[in-house]
Amino acid sequence: MNQLDVVTFGETMVLLNPEEMLPLEYVHRFQKQIGGAESNVAIGLCRLGHSVGWFSRLGDDPFGRFVLRFIRGEGVDTSRCSFTDQAPHSLLFKEKLSPTNINVYYYRKQGATSLLTPDDLDEEYIAGAKLLHLTGITPALSASCRETVFAAIEMAKCHGVKIVFDPNLRLKLWSEQEAKTTLLAIAEQADYILPGLDEGQFLTGEQMPEKVAAALRQKDPMKTVIIKLGSKGSFYQDQTGSNYVSGFPAPQVVDPIGAGDGFAAGVISGILRGESWEQALRRGNAVGAIVVGANGDVEGLPTESVVEQMLRGEHATQDVKR
Amino acid sequence: MNQLDVVTFGETMVLLNPEEMLPLEYVHRFQKQIGGAESNVAIGLCRLGHSVGWFSRLGDDPFGRFVLRFIRGEGVDTSRCSFTDQAPHSLLFKEKLSPTNINVYYYRKQGATSLLTPDDLDEEYIAGAKLLHLTGITPALSASCRETVFAAIEMAKCHGVKIVFDPNLRLKLWSEQEAKTTLLAIAEQADYILPGLDEGQFLTGEQMPEKVAAALRQKDPMKTVIIKLGSKGSFYQDQTGSNYVSGFPAPQVVDPIGAGDGFAAGVISGILRGESWEQALRRGNAVGAIVVGANGDVEGLPTESVVEQMLRGEHATQDVKR
Amino acid sequence: MNQLDVVTFGETMVLLNPEEMLPLEYVHRFQKQIGGAESNVAIGLCRLGHSVGWFSRLGDDPFGRFVLRFIRGEGVDTSRCSFTDQAPHSLLFKEKLSPTNINVYYYRKQGATSLLTPDDLDEEYIAGAKLLHLTGITPALSASCRETVFAAIEMAKCHGVKIVFDPNLRLKLWSEQEAKTTLLAIAEQADYILPGLDEGQFLTGEQMPEKVAAALRQKDPMKTVIIKLGSKGSFYQDQTGSNYVSGFPAPQVVDPIGAGDGFAAGVISGILRGESWEQALRRGNAVGAIVVGANGDVEGLPTESVVEQMLRGEHATQDVKR
Amino acid sequence: MNQLDVVTFGETMVLLNPEEMLPLEYVHRFQKQIGGAESNVAIGLCRLGHSVGWFSRLGDDPFGRFVLRFIRGEGVDTSRCSFTDQAPHSLLFKEKLSPTNINVYYYRKQGATSLLTPDDLDEEYIAGAKLLHLTGITPALSASCRETVFAAIEMAKCHGVKIVFDPNLRLKLWSEQEAKTTLLAIAEQADYILPGLDEGQFLTGEQMPEKVAAALRQKDPMKTVIIKLGSKGSFYQDQTGSNYVSGFPAPQVVDPIGAGDGFAAGVISGILRGESWEQALRRGNAVGAIVVGANGDVEGLPTESVVEQMLRGEHATQDVKR
Amino acid sequence: MNQLDVVTFGETMVLLNPEEMLPLEYVHRFQKQIGGAESNVAIGLCRLGHSVGWFSRLGDDPFGRFVLRFIRGEGVDTSRCSFTDQAPHSLLFKEKLSPTNINVYYYRKQGATSLLTPDDLDEEYIAGAKLLHLTGITPALSASCRETVFAAIEMAKCHGVKIVFDPNLRLKLWSEQEAKTTLLAIAEQADYILPGLDEGQFLTGEQMPEKVAAALRQKDPMKTVIIKLGSKGSFYQDQTGSNYVSGFPAPQVVDPIGAGDGFAAGVISGILRGESWEQALRRGNAVGAIVVGANGDVEGLPTESVVEQMLRGEHATQDVKR
Amino acid sequence: MNQLDVVTFGETMVLLNPEEMLPLEYVHRFQKQIGGAESNVAIGLCRLGHSVGWFSRLGDDPFGRFVLRFIRGEGVDTSRCSFTDQAPHSLLFKEKLSPTNINVYYYRKQGATSLLTPDDLDEEYIAGAKLLHLTGITPALSASCRETVFAAIEMAKCHGVKIVFDPNLRLKLWSEQEAKTTLLAIAEQADYILPGLDEGQFLTGEQMPEKVAAALRQKDPMKTVIIKLGSKGSFYQDQTGSNYVSGFPAPQVVDPIGAGDGFAAGVISGILRGESWEQALRRGNAVGAIVVGANGDVEGLPTESVVEQMLRGEHATQDVKR
Repeated sequence: MNQLDVVTFGETMVLLNPEEMLPLEYVHRFQKQIGGAESNVAIGLCRLGHSVGWFSRLGDDPFGRFVLRFIRGEGVDTSRCSFTDQAPHSLLFKEKLSPTNINVYYYRKQGATSLLTPDDLDEEYIAGAKLLHLTGITPALSASCRETVFAAIEMAKCHGVKIVFDPNLRLKLWSEQEAKTTLLAIAEQADYILPGLDEGQFLTGEQMPEKVAAALRQKDPMKTVIIKLGSKGSFYQDQTGSNYVSGFPAPQVVDPIGAGDGFAAGVISGILRGESWEQALRRGNAVGAIVVGANGDVEGLPTESVVEQMLRGEHATQDVKR
Repeated sequence: MNQLDVVTFGETMVLLNPEEMLPLEYVHRFQKQIGGAESNVAIGLCRLGHSVGWFSRLGDDPFGRFVLRFIRGEGVDTSRCSFTDQAPHSLLFKEKLSPTNINVYYYRKQGATSLLTPDDLDEEYIAGAKLLHLTGITPALSASCRETVFAAIEMAKCHGVKIVFDPNLRLKLWSEQEAKTTLLAIAEQADYILPGLDEGQFLTGEQMPEKVAAALRQKDPMKTVIIKLGSKGSFYQDQTGSNYVSGFPAPQVVDPIGAGDGFAAGVISGILRGESWEQALRRGNAVGAIVVGANGDVEGLPTESVVEQMLRGEHATQDVKR
Repeated sequence: MNQLDVVTFGETMVLLNPEEMLPLEYVHRFQKQIGGAESNVAIGLCRLGHSVGWFSRLGDDPFGRFVLRFIRGEGVDTSRCSFTDQAPHSLLFKEKLSPTNINVYYYRKQGATSLLTPDDLDEEYIAGAKLLHLTGITPALSASCRETVFAAIEMAKCHGVKIVFDPNLRLKLWSEQEAKTTLLAIAEQADYILPGLDEGQFLTGEQMPEKVAAALRQKDPMKTVIIKLGSKGSFYQDQTGSNYVSGFPAPQVVDPIGAGDGFAAGVISGILRGESWEQALRRGNAVGAIVVGANGDVEGLPTESVVEQMLRGEHATQDVKR
Repeated sequence: MNQLDVVTFGETMVLLNPEEMLPLEYVHRFQKQIGGAESNVAIGLCRLGHSVGWFSRLGDDPFGRFVLRFIRGEGVDTSRCSFTDQAPHSLLFKEKLSPTNINVYYYRKQGATSLLTPDDLDEEYIAGAKLLHLTGITPALSASCRETVFAAIEMAKCHGVKIVFDPNLRLKLWSEQEAKTTLLAIAEQADYILPGLDEGQFLTGEQMPEKVAAALRQKDPMKTVIIKLGSKGSFYQDQTGSNYVSGFPAPQVVDPIGAGDGFAAGVISGILRGESWEQALRRGNAVGAIVVGANGDVEGLPTESVVEQMLRGEHATQDVKR
Repeated sequence: MNQLDVVTFGETMVLLNPEEMLPLEYVHRFQKQIGGAESNVAIGLCRLGHSVGWFSRLGDDPFGRFVLRFIRGEGVDTSRCSFTDQAPHSLLFKEKLSPTNINVYYYRKQGATSLLTPDDLDEEYIAGAKLLHLTGITPALSASCRETVFAAIEMAKCHGVKIVFDPNLRLKLWSEQEAKTTLLAIAEQADYILPGLDEGQFLTGEQMPEKVAAALRQKDPMKTVIIKLGSKGSFYQDQTGSNYVSGFPAPQVVDPIGAGDGFAAGVISGILRGESWEQALRRGNAVGAIVVGANGDVEGLPTESVVEQMLRGEHATQDVKR
Repeated sequence: MNQLDVVTFGETMVLLNPEEMLPLEYVHRFQKQIGGAESNVAIGLCRLGHSVGWFSRLGDDPFGRFVLRFIRGEGVDTSRCSFTDQAPHSLLFKEKLSPTNINVYYYRKQGATSLLTPDDLDEEYIAGAKLLHLTGITPALSASCRETVFAAIEMAKCHGVKIVFDPNLRLKLWSEQEAKTTLLAIAEQADYILPGLDEGQFLTGEQMPEKVAAALRQKDPMKTVIIKLGSKGSFYQDQTGSNYVSGFPAPQVVDPIGAGDGFAAGVISGILRGESWEQALRRGNAVGAIVVGANGDVEGLPTESVVEQMLRGEHATQDVKR
């Protein structure tokens, strides 16, 4: 088996995207795409030249097959995916009321991925990776999903695989109390934690990035906390110090969704390259900025050469090239 | 309160209809419509000139609102509908592999309508109707839905409201055993039973229409059984006798879905008009044939003048009228 | 008969909306919607929790039926509508050259609604309302429409029903002279007049809101004049005084059409709630601002809870809610 | 000025074609095309290699400009067209209930073309043609259109230009009595009359093609009557004799509209080539059969080489050519 | 490296499919899909449970990337594909004039795949396969493609890999003489030849399947010739004998394209399963019949369970399953 | 033959425009339009009231026919166009990554127009024009196209027809060296040269408009150089002097493509009207600004009355006109 750079897992839904910017009840047509934080990161890393495995329990129906085809087509290793006919594949409807006023409606309660159990984990597969990527969405899906996350953490720990954790708070899926307890328990085990500032505040009760990071590192000062600050850039803190890394001058915002996942892919790519935190966060900021300037969660994820252009300051939104 | 001719209730889903005749996983675009047997009958009866009430528990979300708007727009009384934010409104995806090879995929487990309870029944509303229309789909949605159906039956019985029952067997929703027991229990209470031949065979174990009808009427010979025979027409049996009523020469089949509901609307209209069974079944056959020759469950339901043309033998599929 | 809060009537056209922002001659596809100032107000009031009746003479054709289905679906009482086969239902094509450069093309000359006559008025229906809403479009459609407007005014006066009048100047439908004479005659009878500033200037020859209002109130100081000032807000003047009520900080303008009708619905809702003029105009400003920030004349009309949020200053254009 | 083979004139509407086979009130999207019998014939003749002029009074609006662009693009001489801002350009909606059950809805009352007057005729232009083509639609549009038709006939007669007349009965536009009187008056002046059998029966009261033709030729035996018999072919009668010319074995009917205009183009092409009536009718039958086997009034009109293939019996509906 | 069941290579174009059944010049919208005989067979085999590798030289542009994503998504091994920026990825436009009258237009002259050279071959990769699948399209693309085909044959021969050859005559790409010479030279090397009857006739000059097969086997009686006979089924001849295997009763033809590739996938699957020729051809006939009854070259390719149903005679085109 | 104001020639491609703002590999649907600098200018001049001839060698396929129909429909004289079946008609795909980040992909290598030769030139046709318009695209298509350009120049010179030259540098079609040499050679022959500033800098090595113009006029001071400066306006220099003419206050940029061609049409119109350079450049600036504020290369080209409004400062982007 080829060793993979990163392994991740979670739920990727079929996304039904309205063709019209109207309240959903007035929309006539929808387009089928996919939506899932972990697969966004997996595809982002593939495009940046890394080898990535993503797995899930998929509905044994047209929508589960579509999700598999899409992610496999992107070059992600999907060999550990399994199908179930015990539940339908989950759905997600977007509602665009204005360019920036967006809602989502889920059909994901008791969906196929909620049936993931620790038995779905291939220990050898995880052991062979350099990094395990986890989000705070998966434990919110079901009790067995929560167990699966902690079982995977144990496997990673056991084999010296570093853990990257992105809290991805989803309050439509569980209560604040459940979320806080579980996310903190995962964060405690993680080597790298990548919250947004609001998520960090929610988890720690602190306001300033420095305090948020310190709180998350309190029990284990060896870990690194990287905080997303939106268009302002990002911040890190580890045992050697801390710093703010400013964002790229914002191009026109075309689609804000997926920026956090793009940032995560950029930072993880930096980690895999052995970059300094300043470099890695700058890479994360670059990917996030590019994703924000293009449509689609996945479609706008840049290749390595585009990111390098951006890092060299050459990424201009140009006129027609012909 | 205006007295209504017919009251019915049940689940009407948002139907997502593929724009392409392909396996669903390859379809890019879907159109939003509605799908529900009881609302089909309600709209069909409205179009034939009757006053009809339909109610349901709807999702307090854009899809529940869309269903309400659509059915209310058709002129059905929806004043007894209620909304819930405890469950999303149910969905239905159609898959067209060829003009006649069609699948459906449900997102209706624990949907909004499954939360209907006997408390949702307005006794005065039911008491004021001439007929109560029930299908065998509603009791398959949840235990509380089943109770609601039987509570409605009791109210109808109590106030002398006649009951029309269309079994509408849905084996994706419950086991054969559960279905059989419950549908027979409802059939026992109904004044008019409208099974398809295959449904009648399933319920009674008999093969021939005469035997099926006799079995369903065994405990209560006062009831009428009307059996749908597809393009061949239909059959009735009551205490006064029985007869086959032949179908209309089939026009080109454009869309087979909804024909049974159209037939039911036609027969119920005949009952309300005080027609003989031969007349009422001929009316049902006419509506069914017209629905089969047009697209859409609801869109193809004819107005009274179109049915009268058909009954007079004047309904030709003509060339361009200009 | 249930008493209604508001009764209104007028022409609602089928709107054919181009799918492409191009000169109309280069557009390939159109979407069917509806367009009509009075039905916008009626639907807006329904959504704010009021009971409203709207009636019209509709084409006895698919387009007339579509208009009826749409408005009835929204919960407006349409029981007084009638159909005619003497004229086709009117059409309206929009042309979008740029986001703010929009033209309309009418096919409404001698359309179905122009055949409205005083005989279409149900005096009891009007008498049962708290308010009668009129626009300056209806009298521009035909002589018999003009007579119908004045007959309705007489009925309202006779039964103590207050009259709200929105001039809605449409110079594509009649000459400046005709318009001025007729609109002033209606304004004279109205209890509440809601012109835009440019309309008020056209009718009175005055420039400043104070002078415009005073001129319109000259013969009858008991009436209230409310002047729309676009994004700046609005102004009122009645016998007790006058005031400017500033608008809400403008969100991104998504679609300017329908804002005036939304404002009217908000103000009328305030009147029905017995609010002060400051409160009612603030409510109108809120509804107008929300409509401007969403697509569609009708689709963007807010529910009461959304308006309350706006009035409490909580209506932010947020990021994705998930 | 180049001499043209044929000159024709009349109304070409913008056709709004539903994207869905549903009752029009349920259709969401329409595509813009054109529809007009005279321009169909003009384009058909162009494609067969002849030089043709078509003129009309067009709306000075996007729809009038679209019609001009479309017809001019096909290579028809449109130099004699004029625009008016006194009336909008006419529209036509198609409604497809099933593949063969089609309705049309007109917005053509008092449209731009109805304002055509004899002053729009360029005598030199008509005098320079070999044939003048007229239909029975134009005189139904308005009194001035009727005068224009008769003025054109007079000019043609005066300059020895032969007249081809296709009755094209449109009972949505005028009464049977008006239609009959006027069409017979035009037929009397025509050198070649091309009715469908039902039109010929309507005009003469006779049933059989022979009798219909004889009746139309009664006053002037020098004229030729050519009767369309649908898929069966066609029939002619002139002073030298008469004959049935059988149709081509019918391919699958894809779209029946426009077949009559295609037939007319084929026959006129035969006349211009100096063919025998058997040859010319066979050519007309071929064009009609090809049009019936393809979508679109205009789009399916064949080029000369395709017609020649058909006439040689080589026009097979083949499988994929690659 | 995993051993693969089958390796194939060739050109897969981006297919631009018209949304309207009209002459291409009148079509407004196109949908992007893929088209390629070898990838059809590769995907068909994957869906039947085999491991397959497909490779090509792809354009280093969005269209080349799309083709890779699509085929990789289906589960085909694409690890040997390479990209070139020396030529654009090839395109294919379909034109549908009627359901059965279809044309194709190529933009494939000097496309990316024409730059394939023997250096693109990975000998170990081919050596590891059980079968090498070749078509007669690849050698038609360029001289270097032709050399590549023969170099691959040599590698296969050298390592005992059996060769399956489907002539796939494309006379739009080369002259009859070139085609005949080259295809016969490949056929000579192949172990299994799968021509259509017309292709076999073209290559051998014989008419009857028996004679065609005998001629192709003349120099090497050890090879098997399998001839496609359309809806009638197929025929084989090898050293042990020959037989006709009848086709499946034809369902409604929905889309004839791709049937030959489906047949090839079915037969190759039979070979890999060690079935008798009767069994393998029956399997091929089944896959072909299923493909013909569904839309899309690739989308309609069945999974193994669907084929088994068909082979057991249970594949009925059913009504709605719900 | 009518004398034409302007004759031009070159390649007009079929443009396939994505319906979604996504990387091209993720786009599902494309719309067919046309794209070509010379035909843009020709159509722009037609719309401004001039008579224009455009010719080309077109593919004898649906795409070539579409291009002819489109341009002829606009009123351009296309009588000198010819068709070839030796090469397909060229294609152009647009890719919109964001509103201002646009790429193009060509399928134009060895397309039909590259087969133009001097034999395609009709000397009498060119001689009859007042101006010959040339771009630097045509000589980049092939050696024979280059010869054709110089042969046309010679004809124009011979008959005293003035030459307008727009360099239109396309570095995807030829090397910088080839481009520079050839474009300078054409510029040397031209009476009016209309480069963008970047093009002028490329050709002369100078930076400032004054220097660029002087360099281009060095050998022949009688010629005029007009330099496009984008939204800033334009600059001219001739033997009488030089000046900057400022641009119109920029409306919202809707689509930047085609602005240069619109500017050229405006300036040429000014030349034909005998305007001063200040007037002509102001006219060019006006057309360019209007084109930038509307969608489509061709669709946004204004009529004369719209330009006159703009020149009078009355062209406001207004609200809805109704």
